Amino acid sequence: MKAFYGDLKLGILGGGQLGRMLIQQAINYNVNIKVLDPDREAPCRKLCDEFIQGSLSDYETVYNFGKKVDLLTIEIEKVNVDALEQLEKEGVIVYPQPRVIRLIQDKGLQKQFFKENNIPTAPFKVITSPEQLRESEFAYPYIQKLRKDGYDGKGVYKVTDETYLTNAFTAPSIIEQLIDFEKEIAVIVARNDKGDVSTFPVVEMEFNPQANLVEFLISPSTLPPAIQQEAERIAKQIADSLKIVGLLAVEMFLTKDGKILVNEVAPRPHNSGHQSIEGNVVSQFEQHLRAIFNQPLGNTACINNAIMVNLLGEQGYEGPAIYKGMEQVLNCPGVYIHLYGKALTKPFRKMGHVTIVDADRNKAIEKAKFVQNTLKVIA
Amino acid sequence: MKAFYGDLKLGILGGGQLGRMLIQQAINYNVNIKVLDPDREAPCRKLCDEFIQGSLSDYETVYNFGKKVDLLTIEIEKVNVDALEQLEKEGVIVYPQPRVIRLIQDKGLQKQFFKENNIPTAPFKVITSPEQLRESEFAYPYIQKLRKDGYDGKGVYKVTDETYLTNAFTAPSIIEQLIDFEKEIAVIVARNDKGDVSTFPVVEMEFNPQANLVEFLISPSTLPPAIQQEAERIAKQIADSLKIVGLLAVEMFLTKDGKILVNEVAPRPHNSGHQSIEGNVVSQFEQHLRAIFNQPLGNTACINNAIMVNLLGEQGYEGPAIYKGMEQVLNCPGVYIHLYGKALTKPFRKMGHVTIVDADRNKAIEKAKFVQNTLKVIA
Repeated sequence: MKAFYGDLKLGILGGGQLGRMLIQQAINYNVNIKVLDPDREAPCRKLCDEFIQGSLSDYETVYNFGKKVDLLTIEIEKVNVDALEQLEKEGVIVYPQPRVIRLIQDKGLQKQFFKENNIPTAPFKVITSPEQLRESEFAYPYIQKLRKDGYDGKGVYKVTDETYLTNAFTAPSIIEQLIDFEKEIAVIVARNDKGDVSTFPVVEMEFNPQANLVEFLISPSTLPPAIQQEAERIAKQIADSLKIVGLLAVEMFLTKDGKILVNEVAPRPHNSGHQSIEGNVVSQFEQHLRAIFNQPLGNTACINNAIMVNLLGEQGYEGPAIYKGMEQVLNCPGVYIHLYGKALTKPFRKMGHVTIVDADRNKAIEKAKFVQNTLKVIA
Repeated sequence: MKAFYGDLKLGILGGGQLGRMLIQQAINYNVNIKVLDPDREAPCRKLCDEFIQGSLSDYETVYNFGKKVDLLTIEIEKVNVDALEQLEKEGVIVYPQPRVIRLIQDKGLQKQFFKENNIPTAPFKVITSPEQLRESEFAYPYIQKLRKDGYDGKGVYKVTDETYLTNAFTAPSIIEQLIDFEKEIAVIVARNDKGDVSTFPVVEMEFNPQANLVEFLISPSTLPPAIQQEAERIAKQIADSLKIVGLLAVEMFLTKDGKILVNEVAPRPHNSGHQSIEGNVVSQFEQHLRAIFNQPLGNTACINNAIMVNLLGEQGYEGPAIYKGMEQVLNCPGVYIHLYGKALTKPFRKMGHVTIVDADRNKAIEKAKFVQNTLKVIA
């Protein structure tokens, strides 16, 4: 690979907030960055050397974009993998590797992979037609997930009883036993091409059940060390089995009887790692760059308690965004605002996040609640 | 003022590394940024909504640029102040205020201001012709400084004895008694339009006498509390006297008999505050934004020991920059690379900086020395 500073042309598929925060970090390495995104108003459009508006799922568009760069990475996994495989054959370095993206794009293959590699996960079944739902021996309620293109709570359907079958997805899907979990946790792991693997400390998540989005995340976890070690061990095991180069976010359930089950993985920087920008020695974005540049991975230790609050568009508002309560929030020490450069808000749209740090965990939680109650994205 | 997120157009005069790091931070607030710089390859050129190549000292260029924005700030003080005063009259908000920039641009006026406001500073004399040097009652050696346009060691001349008078500057200058100092220290202070004033903790500097540039900076200082408090008090006094809005970097000498003398001030983010990005709760760049947006100033407390090493172009090399030793440095925990996006290196050019953090101050110093000896900018 070319030296990663200066000469290297890095392509990013996707120009959203993850790309934006990756660029904020990549600026420190003089990387020449090109971004492809279908939205001409994408958050990255003004922060890169070249912004190209185009489809991420179109073979030609992705192929032609990839031919312009030395190293290609993603900030969203819904991309044309055929094009990536061709680019890889032609000598473009693609991290994460196309085969990893292909596997993770498909929740059926992903679950199959967990099963084959002894990664603990909820019982599941691959479904190809709605009839198979009726024939399944799963007890109600269970979860149906589209194999492809689900994100942020889309593509997920809870089958509570037989009457729900009428509205079930007809596209290829999996069904999964509903896990009565104690807590959702996540571990972000990174692996470089030398095979170095490093995990970030476990974080605990609080979901907004209405939006089905993480709205509150706390780092580090205060779960018993044995559970945290097991979560980190599983994350490493997945990274090693996949031989991924780059970041892998591993979302897990901690069940009420203390077991860890992997929910799903994402081969890129992830919402569950945003607090690392201020909360850890290296951030997930710095770590992703180090991994894909095949450099030594950074120290992931926590500097402080850090809580991440997603800034979602308020219900009932749509249009040019206004951030109400900004001044009160900025008046609170140890609060970091991250807006994502999206002009228009709509209900539950991820408009930004706020990280709150404090040496006292309870104070951090108190401040996070204040931020949640005070800072509102309206129109 | 317009809400500072989204709608607000922020103009930055100067597109160098200070502007670049300011933009890295301003991204978090969705600010629409326009940059003016004479160099078409300026470090900010690809990181803003609009980059305009043009002279910072030309009235028309600065005026026309300023008419496009709501709020204008600087990352270099050598700008056309007449244009800024006209813009201010026409309703553009200019922070720091043009009158402050005018005063600080001129080392004669700056020293006069210190004197009038009882700010301790080295004895000086304003010089309008070379003859006045001979007539001065200053004991050799003393320092002659050009009143205008000196920076990074340029525009400074040491008059060691009478024979040096032949080569002295002929342009308007000041002469200053040479201070036999124990240490150079700096305090960065911020003030918003509400009148809130906040200082960063004192940092200690090590100079490279050959390049006359800070090459090593350590935060926080371990000087006696009384000395640090006095340094912070003086910085606040200057900010209050100037009624500046924005950042002010105050460079000071600690004399061998324990007195503090102000050397000079800069009304903008400054090399002596780079370690704040990782070392303090808020960085100098975040603080400058908060000040010019008239928002609450952030918490400046130190998170950790932080050492900043300037990455200067090695002597004997000129051309496209190569960063030798990068991988070894990245292998060292708690090391943060900041390259400035300059394609070409030359001797002593500021190509980047590295911040090293460690809970153990001696380890931090050890790592900083390792970085200095290992990472070399060659061509």
